[in-house]
Amino acid sequence: MNDSPPAPDSQRNSRYVLSLGCPDGPGIITLITSFITELGGSIVEAGYHADADSGWFFTRQAFRSESEPFDTEALRLRTADLAAKLGPETEWALHDSSVRRKAVVLVSKEGHCLHDLLGRAASGELPATIEAVIGNHPDLASMAQAHGVPFHHVVFPQDPAERGPAFEHVRKLADEYEPDTVVLARFMQVLPPELSEHWAGQAINIHHSFLPSFVGARPYHQAFARGVKLIGASCHYVTAELDAGPIIEQGVIRINHADKVHDMVRQGRDIERLVLARGLRWHLEGRVLVHGHKTIVFA
Amino acid sequence: MNDSPPAPDSQRNSRYVLSLGCPDGPGIITLITSFITELGGSIVEAGYHADADSGWFFTRQAFRSESEPFDTEALRLRTADLAAKLGPETEWALHDSSVRRKAVVLVSKEGHCLHDLLGRAASGELPATIEAVIGNHPDLASMAQAHGVPFHHVVFPQDPAERGPAFEHVRKLADEYEPDTVVLARFMQVLPPELSEHWAGQAINIHHSFLPSFVGARPYHQAFARGVKLIGASCHYVTAELDAGPIIEQGVIRINHADKVHDMVRQGRDIERLVLARGLRWHLEGRVLVHGHKTIVFA
Amino acid sequence: MNDSPPAPDSQRNSRYVLSLGCPDGPGIITLITSFITELGGSIVEAGYHADADSGWFFTRQAFRSESEPFDTEALRLRTADLAAKLGPETEWALHDSSVRRKAVVLVSKEGHCLHDLLGRAASGELPATIEAVIGNHPDLASMAQAHGVPFHHVVFPQDPAERGPAFEHVRKLADEYEPDTVVLARFMQVLPPELSEHWAGQAINIHHSFLPSFVGARPYHQAFARGVKLIGASCHYVTAELDAGPIIEQGVIRINHADKVHDMVRQGRDIERLVLARGLRWHLEGRVLVHGHKTIVFA
Amino acid sequence: MNDSPPAPDSQRNSRYVLSLGCPDGPGIITLITSFITELGGSIVEAGYHADADSGWFFTRQAFRSESEPFDTEALRLRTADLAAKLGPETEWALHDSSVRRKAVVLVSKEGHCLHDLLGRAASGELPATIEAVIGNHPDLASMAQAHGVPFHHVVFPQDPAERGPAFEHVRKLADEYEPDTVVLARFMQVLPPELSEHWAGQAINIHHSFLPSFVGARPYHQAFARGVKLIGASCHYVTAELDAGPIIEQGVIRINHADKVHDMVRQGRDIERLVLARGLRWHLEGRVLVHGHKTIVFA
Repeated sequence: MNDSPPAPDSQRNSRYVLSLGCPDGPGIITLITSFITELGGSIVEAGYHADADSGWFFTRQAFRSESEPFDTEALRLRTADLAAKLGPETEWALHDSSVRRKAVVLVSKEGHCLHDLLGRAASGELPATIEAVIGNHPDLASMAQAHGVPFHHVVFPQDPAERGPAFEHVRKLADEYEPDTVVLARFMQVLPPELSEHWAGQAINIHHSFLPSFVGARPYHQAFARGVKLIGASCHYVTAELDAGPIIEQGVIRINHADKVHDMVRQGRDIERLVLARGLRWHLEGRVLVHGHKTIVFA
Repeated sequence: MNDSPPAPDSQRNSRYVLSLGCPDGPGIITLITSFITELGGSIVEAGYHADADSGWFFTRQAFRSESEPFDTEALRLRTADLAAKLGPETEWALHDSSVRRKAVVLVSKEGHCLHDLLGRAASGELPATIEAVIGNHPDLASMAQAHGVPFHHVVFPQDPAERGPAFEHVRKLADEYEPDTVVLARFMQVLPPELSEHWAGQAINIHHSFLPSFVGARPYHQAFARGVKLIGASCHYVTAELDAGPIIEQGVIRINHADKVHDMVRQGRDIERLVLARGLRWHLEGRVLVHGHKTIVFA
Repeated sequence: MNDSPPAPDSQRNSRYVLSLGCPDGPGIITLITSFITELGGSIVEAGYHADADSGWFFTRQAFRSESEPFDTEALRLRTADLAAKLGPETEWALHDSSVRRKAVVLVSKEGHCLHDLLGRAASGELPATIEAVIGNHPDLASMAQAHGVPFHHVVFPQDPAERGPAFEHVRKLADEYEPDTVVLARFMQVLPPELSEHWAGQAINIHHSFLPSFVGARPYHQAFARGVKLIGASCHYVTAELDAGPIIEQGVIRINHADKVHDMVRQGRDIERLVLARGLRWHLEGRVLVHGHKTIVFA
Repeated sequence: MNDSPPAPDSQRNSRYVLSLGCPDGPGIITLITSFITELGGSIVEAGYHADADSGWFFTRQAFRSESEPFDTEALRLRTADLAAKLGPETEWALHDSSVRRKAVVLVSKEGHCLHDLLGRAASGELPATIEAVIGNHPDLASMAQAHGVPFHHVVFPQDPAERGPAFEHVRKLADEYEPDTVVLARFMQVLPPELSEHWAGQAINIHHSFLPSFVGARPYHQAFARGVKLIGASCHYVTAELDAGPIIEQGVIRINHADKVHDMVRQGRDIERLVLARGLRWHLEGRVLVHGHKTIVFA
């Protein structure tokens, strides 16, 4: 919008995405748009949000270089300068959208989310490669391998108190791939606080209820018992508190009195897949900013 | 479906609705359809549900007389005989859909649900007349009166502990109209247990959240604090436990990070109106059967 | 976002809304945000869209004066200067959101949309007063009058070829109120081309189908005949071509094989009301920009 | 509902599904339920619909044998007797739900629907095996083969007038698998009338628009040009007239002014997958009855 030639028609051509949050104040937009113009960048897509309650300002700027690609390291240094001008609390992330991002997926026995993600990754729809799948059961090994993705089986002891080393093993396996995101695709294990902390802002879970209803185990059974008329799914960042992390996306599907728990499970899979895929894509494209325990999503 | 001339094309011509629940067993459908055929009735619309968990069977039969109208009292006696054959636990209701049903509406200051119901009643869409509106504030008097509906103002003391006589007054006022339903259209007062019991299966509330999330006061504030991506409304029967009665209908509407509480309030009104109107119509047409703390809805 | 004190939490405090479209080019955002800053304005809400296909840029800026209110006429002159800098094709509108806007509603016999709009206007939700209702039938006179709104009955001859003077009468009646919008709330008469032209960008229609399906008369009958599984409603600007104007908002509702035309009519009313109210509010808040035969909606 | 022991909690245990349509008349329900009782069957799930316009009655009865499995051929003969009693126009289908049904999928280059169906078939969610995939391009061969499903590539000539032998080849390949359904999963080729006729009531297509809008080629381009605010997908039986067959299921997804055609394509895939999977499941479970050019769906 700022620079000479008309912008290209898609995200596909944009090279850089800046996501930034800072305390609101005078002239911020002018400062940011001028910064991009001075770089020789052209804004392709922009989102802005001023939150009056917190007094914070958030933006996402997708821009491309008008001439040759920027030197990414130099760009980071200049962005750090910009951030400094916006105050010490400023949080920002910059990524080069031409560099495909990397995901590691944690699973248990239920394969519908993994299957969906593998399909989206293979077709190029998901802006990431799935580097590896890690399961606490071996059931989904062949599904991963059929897509050419390595599968690691980590045995989890029955006793929750003894699962520390298993989680540590998962962490090591995953971190070797240097993932931009760790996706809990119906992993069914609660990450210990230190692992939630380690992957803060990176680990994304799909919970099979419309949060905050039906936290914890067997949410479809809870929904059936309560007699709700819609069931849902929620995609959220993992935090130390179970199913309480910042929500990225939610969806619902209508059910009726004839639907048993197993019908809810079946119908719920459709909304789980969709909500996870959408939330994950937004995360990978730098569309999600976290502030406190809430998200700003420039969808 | 059972009788000679083709059925008429709508509920409007049907005269009788039988709603019935009983323990499931052999030959129930045959028994019920034969009963209607032998009466000289013609089934216009029928719903069936067998619940394997509880072992109960539920049905709703809308039928009309092939010749002249039935004698309603005689019909009730014959239906009671049928019910006796189906076992002592059988629950049933019969109503003549040509007799318009009566509703009393309880309100506070927020008029959007009342305005919507008054409009639907005036246009004939709601299968009931609104006999009276009772408010714990006088704000909506003119709205009711503009539609020719009497308004009663009952003053509620500040101290919840002293509200007993006010509720008793509301009960007396409402019961004088012999209502088929008492609608809490954003009444904002929790009925005391004895009044919930008195109006059991008749009192319908609209709660401005997607239950069981955000029970109690200020649900939009709770939703805002949690950062959900959809807000909802739930229409349910009133029971002694707050916002825990059998749910009749629910709906949701999408919001985003830019929506403040007052935006949620505004958008939520649209879904509250719709969910209440739908749930109330189903109740009035005998489409809702309550079993335990859940509903079967033959919508 | 640009100026010193934190922005207020709502549209309610914003005084001015600038909607603007122009050919895209370098530095436009900086130009516009600087313009507002130099005025002494503080941006409360901002939307941006660059359309690569057409090479146009669109924005909506809601801002308020930091100190005392602006002189609106002076503001218009300065905005005209800004627009001139952005090129001769630039289109813009500015309004003072503290000045309540005016609507005239055209109706026929169906009152559900009118009733809904009157309720929203009375509660302050609709950012406009309904100045008058004009009907080609007298049926809705009492509904308007109960809300204190004047009603004009204009008789339309049976023969479409002779309706010119009736439309001319409608135009004169409506224009006397100097409306910001003319709402066809199930008016059921096709405006002649010269009247569409006269009210271009101001006249808003609700069509009871999901356009472009089922253009013209009796769309629910068409939908029933085709056997669709969802029915819809579309809110659009009126143009000379029937039901072909720029679409502002659409919605759908699920039906099934048991729904007759009259059931679709009933259920469709719920989505018509909602879609019209939403589209109209967006129009009145300057959120809708028309370009070619499409809209940009900063919802 | 008719017979002694309480019904099992799911479709999974039901063995037989009878779908039947006939001219409406007296005592039909009693006749059908008595028929099942006399067989020694127990009704697990039942749907009924009387269509007053056409004067037809439709039902779907899922039942199981109380003791040992029925002799399917004997059951067919007895059902044919029942149908004869209901009149010569009676149409019915009976299938044993314990016999897994067979599907053949026709594809082109777009793999999202195929990938989704393969996943559902592999997990047991789809009540059918995918026997083979036939493509007019070789692109999806490896996707089919990774799931152990044979893939056949049939070359289609550029000139539509010369495609007859290719279609004939497809027909022969498909028919060798004796499919219960032929799924056009974004096949992008219009079946010739004789092939539509040959697979009447069996061939199911997913069209990437909300029919009847945007029939034919490039519906997302058409949707973009018209400026609609929701895009959709429709699952329908294939008939000789393009995209005009009886609709089984439809769905929509919200878009906005920022979505280009390629964004619609991406988002549309999510609704295409869902609508096709749902419609196909209903077809396979005998939930869809066709009458004229409309469907009755006992979902």
